[in-house]
Amino acid sequence: MKPRIDYSLYLATGRAFLRGRDLAAVVEEAVAAGVTLVQLREKTAGAREFYEIGRRLHAVTRRLRVPLIINDRLDIALALDAEGIHVGQDDLPLERVRALAPGRIVGFSVQTVADAEFAARTGADYLGVGPVFTTATKADAGDALGVEGLRRVVAASPLPCVAIGGITPANAEAVMACGVAGCCVISALLGAPDLSAAVTAFRPIVRPPHPRDG
Amino acid sequence: MKPRIDYSLYLATGRAFLRGRDLAAVVEEAVAAGVTLVQLREKTAGAREFYEIGRRLHAVTRRLRVPLIINDRLDIALALDAEGIHVGQDDLPLERVRALAPGRIVGFSVQTVADAEFAARTGADYLGVGPVFTTATKADAGDALGVEGLRRVVAASPLPCVAIGGITPANAEAVMACGVAGCCVISALLGAPDLSAAVTAFRPIVRPPHPRDG
Repeated sequence: MKPRIDYSLYLATGRAFLRGRDLAAVVEEAVAAGVTLVQLREKTAGAREFYEIGRRLHAVTRRLRVPLIINDRLDIALALDAEGIHVGQDDLPLERVRALAPGRIVGFSVQTVADAEFAARTGADYLGVGPVFTTATKADAGDALGVEGLRRVVAASPLPCVAIGGITPANAEAVMACGVAGCCVISALLGAPDLSAAVTAFRPIVRPPHPRDG
Repeated sequence: MKPRIDYSLYLATGRAFLRGRDLAAVVEEAVAAGVTLVQLREKTAGAREFYEIGRRLHAVTRRLRVPLIINDRLDIALALDAEGIHVGQDDLPLERVRALAPGRIVGFSVQTVADAEFAARTGADYLGVGPVFTTATKADAGDALGVEGLRRVVAASPLPCVAIGGITPANAEAVMACGVAGCCVISALLGAPDLSAAVTAFRPIVRPPHPRDG
């Protein structure tokens, strides 16, 4: 059985934001300050490099007892024995990922109610819904849903939803009010001058709205 | 148990050589003419596109009863239920690939005797040894081994070896005389004006040197 997942403050990594810092050290600081889930995104690394980065990161996340989710690459998730895999519409079909990753967390990126219903039927564990706001991190992520668009998808989804795209401490309250299980953040954490302070700013806002989801 | 593999004429695909032809049709022609093993190489396709190309190709290779080997991407090999996976030094570690692909053919690219010994210890099924000759197909493939270099690696290898890199009907006899189980060819087949004729030109040369290897 999968343990209950705390999606409330979900950090996705982005090499462009590291500014020379060591990824494992950055993630360690973020988790110590209150990040509950980590997704490793490596859009340009070769497989071996991705795997080696993942090994170092997984040692940190295991020690701190938060799940590590691998973006896109199921083979790397399996090779690392990572807790989860997150895929989108251009990755391997969700049904194949689900079948090949029994017991792992499977996340799926969606923008529409139809996508959310498909993902629920196909066995995803959670949805990444977005982009909520326009963002420079993912130039190909499509038009922003806005808070109303997010609310529509979340309301129709039987799965836990994580909002992604341009979320900051300033807009996170409106995002959480849509009923999401958490916020997925890249730039507002990794781009912040003080990472721990940024995590701390999010923490009281991203508490799940219903105690039973905590 | 794995069936005996016929490595004698191993076609690796290369999109640059298709000249607008349909890959599945090209592979069908090549196998009908005498290719015994097919490796799908897609260096630029996204995962979904790679998977969809692989699905069409696997339908052909299954029907013609030759194994389909996927280059680099273990996740795509697993998702396709392909017969094999071929990895190199920059891909996932061979020991992880071996562990995650039980029952599948695992090939490994080597250039040295030490690599070949490592691969044998680590459970590879066959080696791709090369480049034997300089080749434009893989600009990053390193210095050519030459026939003597190939012979040295093959002589030290407990695994079946497939020679790769610049092999043509004109040099294939010297290559086979090194004791390889077969030749892996891209450009001399896919770049030929008449694919079937090119396969036919290789066929009598790539017969294994010892009848027991046939």
